[in-house]
Amino acid sequence: MTTSNNLYSDRRALGTVGQGFEAVRRQLDAFLLQDEGYSAQLAVYWKNELVVDLFGDNGSGSDEQGVTGVFSVSKGIGALVIALLIQRGLLDLDKPVAHYWEDFGYGGKTAITVRQLLSHQAGLLGTGTTFEQHEILESSKAAAKLARTVPQWHPGSMFGYHAITIGVFMEEIVRRVTGRELREIYEEEIRAPRQVDFYLGFPEAQEHRYRELSPMRPTIAQQAESYRGRVSSDTLGDLASNTLGNSHSLLAGQFSPNLREVRAAGPAAIGGVGSARGLAKVYAAAIGDVAGPRFLDEATVLKVTQQQAWGHDRVLDVDMCFGVVFAKSQPRADYGSYLAFGHDGAGGAIGFADPFHEIGFGYIPMPMQYPGGVDPKALVLTRTVRECIKRQLEA
Amino acid sequence: MTTSNNLYSDRRALGTVGQGFEAVRRQLDAFLLQDEGYSAQLAVYWKNELVVDLFGDNGSGSDEQGVTGVFSVSKGIGALVIALLIQRGLLDLDKPVAHYWEDFGYGGKTAITVRQLLSHQAGLLGTGTTFEQHEILESSKAAAKLARTVPQWHPGSMFGYHAITIGVFMEEIVRRVTGRELREIYEEEIRAPRQVDFYLGFPEAQEHRYRELSPMRPTIAQQAESYRGRVSSDTLGDLASNTLGNSHSLLAGQFSPNLREVRAAGPAAIGGVGSARGLAKVYAAAIGDVAGPRFLDEATVLKVTQQQAWGHDRVLDVDMCFGVVFAKSQPRADYGSYLAFGHDGAGGAIGFADPFHEIGFGYIPMPMQYPGGVDPKALVLTRTVRECIKRQLEA
Amino acid sequence: MTTSNNLYSDRRALGTVGQGFEAVRRQLDAFLLQDEGYSAQLAVYWKNELVVDLFGDNGSGSDEQGVTGVFSVSKGIGALVIALLIQRGLLDLDKPVAHYWEDFGYGGKTAITVRQLLSHQAGLLGTGTTFEQHEILESSKAAAKLARTVPQWHPGSMFGYHAITIGVFMEEIVRRVTGRELREIYEEEIRAPRQVDFYLGFPEAQEHRYRELSPMRPTIAQQAESYRGRVSSDTLGDLASNTLGNSHSLLAGQFSPNLREVRAAGPAAIGGVGSARGLAKVYAAAIGDVAGPRFLDEATVLKVTQQQAWGHDRVLDVDMCFGVVFAKSQPRADYGSYLAFGHDGAGGAIGFADPFHEIGFGYIPMPMQYPGGVDPKALVLTRTVRECIKRQLEA
Repeated sequence: MTTSNNLYSDRRALGTVGQGFEAVRRQLDAFLLQDEGYSAQLAVYWKNELVVDLFGDNGSGSDEQGVTGVFSVSKGIGALVIALLIQRGLLDLDKPVAHYWEDFGYGGKTAITVRQLLSHQAGLLGTGTTFEQHEILESSKAAAKLARTVPQWHPGSMFGYHAITIGVFMEEIVRRVTGRELREIYEEEIRAPRQVDFYLGFPEAQEHRYRELSPMRPTIAQQAESYRGRVSSDTLGDLASNTLGNSHSLLAGQFSPNLREVRAAGPAAIGGVGSARGLAKVYAAAIGDVAGPRFLDEATVLKVTQQQAWGHDRVLDVDMCFGVVFAKSQPRADYGSYLAFGHDGAGGAIGFADPFHEIGFGYIPMPMQYPGGVDPKALVLTRTVRECIKRQLEA
Repeated sequence: MTTSNNLYSDRRALGTVGQGFEAVRRQLDAFLLQDEGYSAQLAVYWKNELVVDLFGDNGSGSDEQGVTGVFSVSKGIGALVIALLIQRGLLDLDKPVAHYWEDFGYGGKTAITVRQLLSHQAGLLGTGTTFEQHEILESSKAAAKLARTVPQWHPGSMFGYHAITIGVFMEEIVRRVTGRELREIYEEEIRAPRQVDFYLGFPEAQEHRYRELSPMRPTIAQQAESYRGRVSSDTLGDLASNTLGNSHSLLAGQFSPNLREVRAAGPAAIGGVGSARGLAKVYAAAIGDVAGPRFLDEATVLKVTQQQAWGHDRVLDVDMCFGVVFAKSQPRADYGSYLAFGHDGAGGAIGFADPFHEIGFGYIPMPMQYPGGVDPKALVLTRTVRECIKRQLEA
Repeated sequence: MTTSNNLYSDRRALGTVGQGFEAVRRQLDAFLLQDEGYSAQLAVYWKNELVVDLFGDNGSGSDEQGVTGVFSVSKGIGALVIALLIQRGLLDLDKPVAHYWEDFGYGGKTAITVRQLLSHQAGLLGTGTTFEQHEILESSKAAAKLARTVPQWHPGSMFGYHAITIGVFMEEIVRRVTGRELREIYEEEIRAPRQVDFYLGFPEAQEHRYRELSPMRPTIAQQAESYRGRVSSDTLGDLASNTLGNSHSLLAGQFSPNLREVRAAGPAAIGGVGSARGLAKVYAAAIGDVAGPRFLDEATVLKVTQQQAWGHDRVLDVDMCFGVVFAKSQPRADYGSYLAFGHDGAGGAIGFADPFHEIGFGYIPMPMQYPGGVDPKALVLTRTVRECIKRQLEA
């Protein structure tokens, strides 16, 4: 008699949870048991303390020291820099982009505000031809091209995920306003002072910690579902398909964080590298005193987390909800209160802060999880965390 | 051999219908026969005459003399006062709210117009903590708090039902513009001159007529459905759940019209008390000569009934359609022509005018009817009324 | 032994296809074989050459010389004239309509822009009473009435198909800006110089070529589906139902192109007459050098094809996507790239240009095809054309 060990693992999550958060460990264990190919890092700060610090390693890379690429989770980290500029009065969401970046006014774009551009409303998905790698890694080049582009939709008539270009826009706006690079400000004013284990521009000295991302493992049924989705979404069409792809093409392509040059540059759209601990810490430090005083005040948090767009996203073909860059919690992907702000990524990772529940949250699964965007397991884990907090507050 | 009388009643509706409206009585009878726990008042004016005046009493309170609380149906009555101010040139929908109410400008709200605020577009569902009863009953207190609040969404990016606060806003705007209370203007200029049997501020002398509201009786399947709905709606989250609840919590809570202090104050959001006759009369009198000349002219009716928002309501999680305060007829709840204006309530009641069909309509079921919002039976009854009118016009 | 010839035809499409487009002929043949009552004209220009020129005649009118009425396909032809005025700097999409047409400002309409009015956003479906035939054929009369009308919805709060009135608005705007009739400009500056076989105002001398439109042949199941649709759409209600109808009423009614006076006048909303060759040619000539230099430059094409409204159309009760007048390709009716612009009609015909694929496309089925709007078979044919082009470019 033989037993199969293909489906069920006997691994448990390693690491620690604080008192009252035992249910989080049990939930992660359950996920590990159900799928032996799955691993994950999970970290949660609550009231400025690290209360969950788990790594469930089934051998695919989520060991305690590992870091990896998290695609669009990076956008949230870039947005923390944008929030800093707003807090310092350097950037006004209601000013036209052209106020800061004169060339942007071309092609009927003079009235587009920073608010619209940074919430996927401007209709600038691309330029009609695929960007080359160097244009995104040195994004002033892509920015110059985009400045000459006419919006694909009349700004205000809808919104749709600017998968690549929103990073270009964040970086160019920071350049125009401060004369510096977004990644430098992140490094010097946010990351280094707090020793945050999440990088825009991954240092060579840390390379031994990088774990290669590997593609999703969808079932046959999921592949069929995904194929149907792709057919119906190829309408807005050719620009959208330039900026999006499936998990294999993301990893095989020129923008994969598995390429040293991509993660060395760390573009805000897709190039961040780090650990779940790093994600949880940076978000916790944004709204609480973690390794120093909180770096975003309440008024700034309200400004950048205020909902700017909600409903059917024409590019992603699912419901989305955006604040200023941040992907907000919403019925389809309910990860927190109406004040929560963060971003998920194509591989299933997510990082966010929830001022209402006073948490910073980081989660990175391995390999990339179907269907892309926040891993459904992460939503369950966020709910478990909220339930643990509720019980503690009631006790 | 025994027969069960649990499900089928032998009651018929009492009261009168005019010639050509017999089908309305038959339809109400059918509903009474199907459910012995159900009763209802139904009244319809057509061309300034009371053509339907029915009360189907299965013992739960809808006798001829009874009145009861109708929750959000009250909003439509408050809105009739708003319409009066517009008609008199005292209130301009396109002016910023801060023009009339200076403090309101706090927190990025200077540009919000009266039009947006009164059509659920401003993102001011609450203040993050539950209102206390006295803050709503003397709503200048709640208004002062709301003036200090930052909108939950960027005004214009979506709309969502302001279940409690739209009443506060109506009342505060009336205060700022006239120096008087909304309920006083309603009483003196609309209700008393026409002897309308619907009150914002229910008089002590009429207390013997008050019939207690009792909660819904959903089936197990309906309860399951409702529970699923609640889970998915807890995202925008904590503010929304402060302002909404299920039928038990509405009746048990501090804002229940079953509390004498609530119905004595008669807040425009949820505190009105009256009969179906009263509702039908006040709407008929708004658009026709009933107990005096019509009190709203055609131009004003067009202004307040013009659609301001339509589509998926993020708070209620169903499609809604709003004019200025009024909940308009729409595919999901089709009660009249594109010109119809009124409001339904959590217990299933509805009052409206339809200038196209020249009707005023009032309907109050007992007990509260699942699922909340306009009772599906009321929609059938409005259709029957329209069919009767069509036949009369063709005859 | 007998064989039935009721369902399957042995007809094949006549006409020619260029090398590499054989699959288009095979696809049209397949449709002809499946339904012996169906015929169609199909023409495609690619890179300024006529590469598909087919007519599949099962005896219902789509012979090589035939022309017929195509209802709303006419709107796209009218829109080509609007685009000409924009190109010449005579018309600014962001100016208020009242800038060009003073009377239009009545009833709170002073701020409505040309952009909004020409993309179904103004809420001016009608005037509450049905238009008479002469008011549409001499549309300055309908325009005068519409100028006095209050919008049914607050402009900007939604959009909905202005089936009849968008033609009136196009014609009146052209009158106000140029002092001439839209059809004259179309005839003199677009049609005649290129010998385009599509007319706004069908000449008497060509009458022998006119083939009568006949109504749809929906199955019982389709009729039931259609009836359900009608019930739910009668809400916005009475104005919408004045401007729309089913295929029998369209053909029996006063605006049918089967009436000589209608096609002689050629109103831009519904009165155009021509062949698929004509449609393909005029769109090909708009974006390429066909029978002369292209008549719309790239900047103008970007202006008029930019998406202005997308999502659920309240009047049609399906998803729609509009540029300036043009009905754009969209997930529900995917006929081309994000740059494609054209219009379909109640009988199933469609004409469009796709600058991305460099094609002009015309398709006219006979009889009218269920369910109205672009024939689903046309979408398959457009996909086949794109696949043929892709293969040629890859070869």
